[in-house]
Amino acid sequence: MVLSLPENAFIDPSGHNQAQISSLLKATADQILDYLSSAATHPPLPELDPLPLATIPDQPGDLAELLAPLQRIMTQSMNPAHPGYIGHMDPLPTTASLLGDWVAAALNNNMLSVEMSPALSRLEPQLMAEIAQMFGLGERSGGLLVSGGSLANLQALTVARNLKLNCLDQGLIGQVPPVILASEMAHTSIQKAAMVLGLGRQGVIPVAADAQGQMHPEALENCLQACLRAGQRPFAVVATAGTTVTGSIDPLLAIHRLARSYNLWFHVDAAYGGALIFSPDQSYRLEGIHLADSITFNPQKWLYVTKTCASVLFRDMTWLQDHFRISAPYMNDLADWTNLGEIALQGTRHGDSLKLWLALQHLGKAGYAALIETSYDLTRSMVDYIDQRSHLTLACTPAMNLVCFRSCPRALPESQWDRWNSHLQKELLKAGQVFLSLPWWRGQRWLKAVLLNPYTTKEHIGQWFELIDTLSVSVGTDLGV
Amino acid sequence: MVLSLPENAFIDPSGHNQAQISSLLKATADQILDYLSSAATHPPLPELDPLPLATIPDQPGDLAELLAPLQRIMTQSMNPAHPGYIGHMDPLPTTASLLGDWVAAALNNNMLSVEMSPALSRLEPQLMAEIAQMFGLGERSGGLLVSGGSLANLQALTVARNLKLNCLDQGLIGQVPPVILASEMAHTSIQKAAMVLGLGRQGVIPVAADAQGQMHPEALENCLQACLRAGQRPFAVVATAGTTVTGSIDPLLAIHRLARSYNLWFHVDAAYGGALIFSPDQSYRLEGIHLADSITFNPQKWLYVTKTCASVLFRDMTWLQDHFRISAPYMNDLADWTNLGEIALQGTRHGDSLKLWLALQHLGKAGYAALIETSYDLTRSMVDYIDQRSHLTLACTPAMNLVCFRSCPRALPESQWDRWNSHLQKELLKAGQVFLSLPWWRGQRWLKAVLLNPYTTKEHIGQWFELIDTLSVSVGTDLGV
Repeated sequence: MVLSLPENAFIDPSGHNQAQISSLLKATADQILDYLSSAATHPPLPELDPLPLATIPDQPGDLAELLAPLQRIMTQSMNPAHPGYIGHMDPLPTTASLLGDWVAAALNNNMLSVEMSPALSRLEPQLMAEIAQMFGLGERSGGLLVSGGSLANLQALTVARNLKLNCLDQGLIGQVPPVILASEMAHTSIQKAAMVLGLGRQGVIPVAADAQGQMHPEALENCLQACLRAGQRPFAVVATAGTTVTGSIDPLLAIHRLARSYNLWFHVDAAYGGALIFSPDQSYRLEGIHLADSITFNPQKWLYVTKTCASVLFRDMTWLQDHFRISAPYMNDLADWTNLGEIALQGTRHGDSLKLWLALQHLGKAGYAALIETSYDLTRSMVDYIDQRSHLTLACTPAMNLVCFRSCPRALPESQWDRWNSHLQKELLKAGQVFLSLPWWRGQRWLKAVLLNPYTTKEHIGQWFELIDTLSVSVGTDLGV
Repeated sequence: MVLSLPENAFIDPSGHNQAQISSLLKATADQILDYLSSAATHPPLPELDPLPLATIPDQPGDLAELLAPLQRIMTQSMNPAHPGYIGHMDPLPTTASLLGDWVAAALNNNMLSVEMSPALSRLEPQLMAEIAQMFGLGERSGGLLVSGGSLANLQALTVARNLKLNCLDQGLIGQVPPVILASEMAHTSIQKAAMVLGLGRQGVIPVAADAQGQMHPEALENCLQACLRAGQRPFAVVATAGTTVTGSIDPLLAIHRLARSYNLWFHVDAAYGGALIFSPDQSYRLEGIHLADSITFNPQKWLYVTKTCASVLFRDMTWLQDHFRISAPYMNDLADWTNLGEIALQGTRHGDSLKLWLALQHLGKAGYAALIETSYDLTRSMVDYIDQRSHLTLACTPAMNLVCFRSCPRALPESQWDRWNSHLQKELLKAGQVFLSLPWWRGQRWLKAVLLNPYTTKEHIGQWFELIDTLSVSVGTDLGV
């Protein structure tokens, strides 16, 4: 071991510092557990305070003494374990996924190649193939784990572009201007993908959505016709199963029919909604998803797996070999297994399959079904509270466990409603320990709830609406109107 | 809590299952530590065995009972903690980075936005700005953590393309064919980036390297002239500081001079070699890196931080605002801090800054300098053993802690040398518990060592060469020649 380094800099592979490391690991595990086991007593979203120890020191420090500044960072973090944390699609993680992630970090294997992760590079494709089958993608299907949904969409659309425009080797120069069609409600990562792929930010044609936030098939066909008239080449359509703000699901069957007749790649961004495949009661909402060429599905959301755990599924995994693969000559070939870094956007990658595998083994399909169905139950309860209040408006009928609403009090001029809802959001957090997010949607401020937390109860929801009632009494005064 | 779920499915935020979870966390921590503390007794790279529990169960299971199959996955994994694991740029992680990663997983914050990671979204830019300053990139510089070096290169080249070709909105259609120049020894992720960016796999022009594996400035200028004659638009040159197979460093100053006179973006892929900035003795090797427009630098390699921890640094962070940014209207704006998901390839992202911060706090700059200088010492020792043996040839003089060599025994015809080195690699692993990788380089098989492990000693190296001597005695017989 290198002199002048702390004795506990690394875990000695011959066990010489095991006792010392053991107390550090346990102190850290205790600190983590104490914090998470009292998460309900910390605010769902803390105030910003200065961060500790912002500069890199010259000399080594004492790791045990660093646990105090670490604690300060913990208490300044987003707190999704709080039953009132309902602002975003960010859940508290399952115990199994946390443990799986701890082991993956300790193993420090690399998903770049089979040689660098002999177990996990086999576990991942097995797991992905099984999940692709659950979506009904068929025998040649499979997928990749990627570090976040934006990468899943980017990888899917890269393969789509390379295959449909045959541009793996030569690129886009000389092509008819290619475009992607997606709902005006699609996630911004679609536009980001188009920009990265060389189509420009204007390479995504926004298709109008209806009152329920769902892409309008007729509008899609009109857009396709307009593209063709403008001399563009539409090569892919993205349907969304679970839009970011309202959780709406585009009509997959109708979109697929148009995709087929216009020779488009059919990608379904089910980053959020893909989890419904685990619920026998709710999976009907994804009807048509089995017809997708590719699907984005993120277990880091409604499957409660620690971040990141996102995936992109393909109807035919040979497409990645033929229309994406970049070989790495510094890697050994292993006959039966693919070096995943050669067919993925990422090379070096964390072993996310381990936590997904452990979480699925622990909760089983039935456990996830129960979680999903419970959050539908909470959603119905929340919708009831909103329906009972004339000043509250739903953005649309929830298709999932997202409830997007706003307060439109007659005591205020309409021009003040955005300001009023911003005020309400802040007050709910301060006085009620409930964090709703405050998205822009169709040009207005809305309050958004994502009912993921299994410790959120109907009683909590009742209390929040009581608070909304109380705050609403003094609406004009509070805003100084 | 949802009925029909195991009681320990989540950590109860009100503490009702704390005792139960505590024993699980401790059992897992013990299992991890027992494994890593005996890593020297497991092979550096295990044989492939069938994986346990490959399918997703219908019903929930017992998490404590899942620790046994988890153990089987651990023992089938790459074992970089073994002092004989010297095959790839994949280190054992520092204790602090491991603990930081455990905390980050438990917090499950999201680097997409400040609201989703109020502490870590501020910690990351602070840390990145300080590291960018260490590289001498100046006052407007900073960077992003990304999930792996391929993404770092992709992000840098996306910004380069958008800025140099002014194609953020309109894309590439109608442009003169753009190309990137990089050494023939550059990492395959450069080619992958070109493909994703719409330049095609042929969008990278390989520049010849000299005998030391360094890009030839004269060859670069010839390539640039040839591109212009061919009607192409070279817009970026990639220099490598630490090539994958030999750890060579391209001549940064000379490449920068050409980049400036041809109006090219100057990217330095210092994924591996960037760590030298921490060593007062060795940082001279990076001379000229302060002139880069962007740098890839991966603490997951020579800074021993758990995967993934990669970064891309920019001379001017406003470039990301002006030539990359995609806004997310569902996020709150916070005046002083940027939502990192808007200026990065990734949206949702794991909080990698925490482990980097903790690792740097623990070891300090001096600790990393000691680690780097120690591995140079091991490198000199290994080179001595090679020089003493007439049948062993170095690919080139190591510029870092990579030693790439092969055995060229006169007893065998040259046509058998690839086979012989493959044989040697296997036997060294089997009989000597040392894992060297076996890359292709200039059309031949080589043995590659990366001397990262701080528990590797000169005694180990001596034993390996004794074994090479023993194996070489019977060279003809063993190969059946």
